[in-house]
Amino acid sequence: MTYGLLKGKRGLIFGALNEKSIAWKVAERACEEGAQLVLTNTPVSIRLGSIDKLAAKLGAIVIPADATKVEDLTALVQQGVEHLGGQLDFVLHSIGMSPNVRKGRTYDDLDYAYLQQTLDISAISFHKLLQVCRKLDAISSWGSVVALSYVAAQRTLYGYNDMADAKAMLESIARSFGYIYGREKKIRINTVSQSPTLTTAGSGIMGFDNLVDFADRMSPLGNANAADCANYIITLFSDLTRKVTMQNLFHDGGYASMGMSFRAMKVYNEGLEYRDVKEDKTKQQRRTEDAGEKS
Amino acid sequence: MTYGLLKGKRGLIFGALNEKSIAWKVAERACEEGAQLVLTNTPVSIRLGSIDKLAAKLGAIVIPADATKVEDLTALVQQGVEHLGGQLDFVLHSIGMSPNVRKGRTYDDLDYAYLQQTLDISAISFHKLLQVCRKLDAISSWGSVVALSYVAAQRTLYGYNDMADAKAMLESIARSFGYIYGREKKIRINTVSQSPTLTTAGSGIMGFDNLVDFADRMSPLGNANAADCANYIITLFSDLTRKVTMQNLFHDGGYASMGMSFRAMKVYNEGLEYRDVKEDKTKQQRRTEDAGEKS
Amino acid sequence: MTYGLLKGKRGLIFGALNEKSIAWKVAERACEEGAQLVLTNTPVSIRLGSIDKLAAKLGAIVIPADATKVEDLTALVQQGVEHLGGQLDFVLHSIGMSPNVRKGRTYDDLDYAYLQQTLDISAISFHKLLQVCRKLDAISSWGSVVALSYVAAQRTLYGYNDMADAKAMLESIARSFGYIYGREKKIRINTVSQSPTLTTAGSGIMGFDNLVDFADRMSPLGNANAADCANYIITLFSDLTRKVTMQNLFHDGGYASMGMSFRAMKVYNEGLEYRDVKEDKTKQQRRTEDAGEKS
Amino acid sequence: MTYGLLKGKRGLIFGALNEKSIAWKVAERACEEGAQLVLTNTPVSIRLGSIDKLAAKLGAIVIPADATKVEDLTALVQQGVEHLGGQLDFVLHSIGMSPNVRKGRTYDDLDYAYLQQTLDISAISFHKLLQVCRKLDAISSWGSVVALSYVAAQRTLYGYNDMADAKAMLESIARSFGYIYGREKKIRINTVSQSPTLTTAGSGIMGFDNLVDFADRMSPLGNANAADCANYIITLFSDLTRKVTMQNLFHDGGYASMGMSFRAMKVYNEGLEYRDVKEDKTKQQRRTEDAGEKS
Repeated sequence: MTYGLLKGKRGLIFGALNEKSIAWKVAERACEEGAQLVLTNTPVSIRLGSIDKLAAKLGAIVIPADATKVEDLTALVQQGVEHLGGQLDFVLHSIGMSPNVRKGRTYDDLDYAYLQQTLDISAISFHKLLQVCRKLDAISSWGSVVALSYVAAQRTLYGYNDMADAKAMLESIARSFGYIYGREKKIRINTVSQSPTLTTAGSGIMGFDNLVDFADRMSPLGNANAADCANYIITLFSDLTRKVTMQNLFHDGGYASMGMSFRAMKVYNEGLEYRDVKEDKTKQQRRTEDAGEKS
Repeated sequence: MTYGLLKGKRGLIFGALNEKSIAWKVAERACEEGAQLVLTNTPVSIRLGSIDKLAAKLGAIVIPADATKVEDLTALVQQGVEHLGGQLDFVLHSIGMSPNVRKGRTYDDLDYAYLQQTLDISAISFHKLLQVCRKLDAISSWGSVVALSYVAAQRTLYGYNDMADAKAMLESIARSFGYIYGREKKIRINTVSQSPTLTTAGSGIMGFDNLVDFADRMSPLGNANAADCANYIITLFSDLTRKVTMQNLFHDGGYASMGMSFRAMKVYNEGLEYRDVKEDKTKQQRRTEDAGEKS
Repeated sequence: MTYGLLKGKRGLIFGALNEKSIAWKVAERACEEGAQLVLTNTPVSIRLGSIDKLAAKLGAIVIPADATKVEDLTALVQQGVEHLGGQLDFVLHSIGMSPNVRKGRTYDDLDYAYLQQTLDISAISFHKLLQVCRKLDAISSWGSVVALSYVAAQRTLYGYNDMADAKAMLESIARSFGYIYGREKKIRINTVSQSPTLTTAGSGIMGFDNLVDFADRMSPLGNANAADCANYIITLFSDLTRKVTMQNLFHDGGYASMGMSFRAMKVYNEGLEYRDVKEDKTKQQRRTEDAGEKS
Repeated sequence: MTYGLLKGKRGLIFGALNEKSIAWKVAERACEEGAQLVLTNTPVSIRLGSIDKLAAKLGAIVIPADATKVEDLTALVQQGVEHLGGQLDFVLHSIGMSPNVRKGRTYDDLDYAYLQQTLDISAISFHKLLQVCRKLDAISSWGSVVALSYVAAQRTLYGYNDMADAKAMLESIARSFGYIYGREKKIRINTVSQSPTLTTAGSGIMGFDNLVDFADRMSPLGNANAADCANYIITLFSDLTRKVTMQNLFHDGGYASMGMSFRAMKVYNEGLEYRDVKEDKTKQQRRTEDAGEKS
């Protein structure tokens, strides 16, 4: 179903690597809802992924940019606005990467140059984007900016590493800049805290599949997938949510408000049971061996 | 602008007293978006307000019900479903009242029979509504339920009295029932924490006008009004937000994420200045009087 | 170790049923730290439990009171203050009970008379206690009041039922009354959100043992037990925490800030593995049976 | 009053510039409670401030260190442990500085090299300290680490600038490392979110005095000062709070849980009144002038 929610709107979307990406789905849905788009990603991601296919399909252009570089962002925003023929009405920031995670550096053995990169790519890029947009007056009044976050910004998940700190900072930037951009230009800035999603980015995290299973069983509505997320973000880009700003919005099937579900606990209980079974076996075996020794 | 977001959907809306009511605006917008409605309120509110006018305008029916009575709610839901010709797709709970506030009982001198009524009307009615709906299987799969809340559930505002406790309980009910209704029927339940709004209900609160002014200057986007709120709630009723549940969603122009804005602080600073001015005057006067005495 | 932190202080403690109770441990530790106590509980709990033994050991008196009755609370506080020879310096509220849980009414089939009792006993009793104390001016300036809560006030745990709503309300009462009692008398009011604890009260909850196991493996420091909790509450009663008020303080070994720990996930993973093992067995069995049928 | 809460404990304290510093008060109180200390600060701060006076008074040593440099921290911790004759039992991180604030760069015109410094000094230094301590196994089992934060990590205050993002990251580091250090060594890590405090650091923030006034009138117990904060932190260093970890603990007289107090609103109301008065004057004057023109 489409509704024309973004009819006549112009948008800029970061981070569509391939068809699994949340940004990919958002771009597709935004077009369906009537928007005109500029897509962007780093040159490397453009090469590795298939964003050009997406652009072709949507009649959008791709402008390469390294979101950690102010000059790249400036060129991107200027060209984007020019191409679209007017100020941006919405922007999606879906960027995150931790060299520490990639290189297997644990959180108690961080490489601080890598940490700097994690922050630069995953959080500070958001500030740079906003500052560049504001200096160029590139976002229209009552425009909407969304960045993707994760519950790790509030609660520690083993293995998520320095990305947790980056997401906490990202959400803070949304608040801090949301205040300034709101009072001046009526532009709203929010983060969407999404269920763990089986994107290319997500798959880098240790034990991710089982974590996705746990989150799914914890969430009364099950995990939200990339397509669900795209639908939700469309509402945040629409004119119907103009007074929502500086928020971190959980889009996770209820996960963040759960302490323990019956379904997740059942698996946990079976894990405890299995331990007992295995322990009994070990005990029996030991007893048999002991008996053997004694005989 | 309308989008057909609720095309073919059936809804039940509590609490439209008069055209200032948030529920009133929601009803209007829901119809514009294609929904068919049943409206309800207590017999007294129906008499005092103008809900019949709204129903006439929207081609909806009004079924009186006291939301604190399970039998009233049962009849309402049964008749509503029958009238609409199918399960409900969305429900709005916009009900709240504190006899302690009305009768001027301060929070350190609560009448406990009144407190019971505050809770019954403002929070437990929400549970009763949900329990009745579930027993009658009256809400469709992927249906959406919203109740209206206020930031007083998290932070104390003088004069808001036992309504703060009722709102805290209301938000908890949304979570508790959201879990159950979510896992079983994929129904989502959220609360919207709205800016202070100049409705008939809001105007009962002591010093409300200046509080509204403060909230407005604190919020980078200004206070959200009833029409804004209606737009937002439409998105929560639509199929685009299916995986959002058990959340308390701030719809307040950014207020809840503000510590202090420049605009609000300016007025505060002038308040301090005025105190100094008045104090100086008093001092001068005293000095003049002193001088007079001495002369 | 004792430090004399409560030397010369007078305290009132609710809810010491038996030696497993958190209130019991608090009473013991408070005496060790130099406080003089009045203990109280309902007549039934006094009969069923062993509070008299505690009182004898601590040189305290027991005054029976039903905390849902203002007249009982009034008599209790008056007699308590008289017995102790001065205003109370600290109060512990450790009361909670849900007839719905006890009678096996699930959250989607609540008995509303029971819900009323749950709220009366577990939340409103706290307001009554505070209102009575204030009217009698029974708590000294810079006094400290603590009530026990649980993370279910923020996040839904299956089976915790209407106690979640009661705890949410309890925490709200702490804030609402904390404002009033703070500005007037410099009295602070906080709630402590404690790890699931194997008390007599806790054991009523379905599947509680495994939930305790889960919480323990999630918490980097392991669950906090009743003795730990008593130590923590002593600091909140002491003069060293005078500016902490209106807070819900997690005392849970880190649980509330955890998304997923390695240790808890390991058990969950084994649960998933066990399912696979059992499924394989079933499949093999079926295959064997199939083979048998065919032979 | 002293209690011997830290008898025999060894502590490391960062950030005591002068007698206004919170760290200064913590050091004094920690010694009074029986601890032996090592103090540290940057060479510049040591020169500008009066930490040597404090050290002399407390019989402590001062080891200069730049907390952004791993090698400095390593030397500091090694020498500190050696000097104290054993592992550290507690550590205070009270460090924060924003070159953007100092140089008057507003949040929409950040210098990104400065931002890097803000993060390095105010947040990453905390991670470096913890990582160094862990690698050197320098903190004893059940040790306690505290860092100072501010409510700006949750809510935007104009003028607090990139320090808000740094504090959000600081609190995240406390959680992330709290998990690891907790499960391995039973070491707890918390942040204390303190009232705005008139320290040398605080005074750099625009309009700080009036903000302090506002916070004071909002807080039912008034602002917490540096001496209050020291008392509170002593309890967090003591053995009585062993199961509290990964928390951000508000120590602010109730501020963070307030929406609006009567006292603060009164000043705000007078600010509105003053505006009316001034407007009336302007109107009268205009009318007089108009009359003059006409005559």
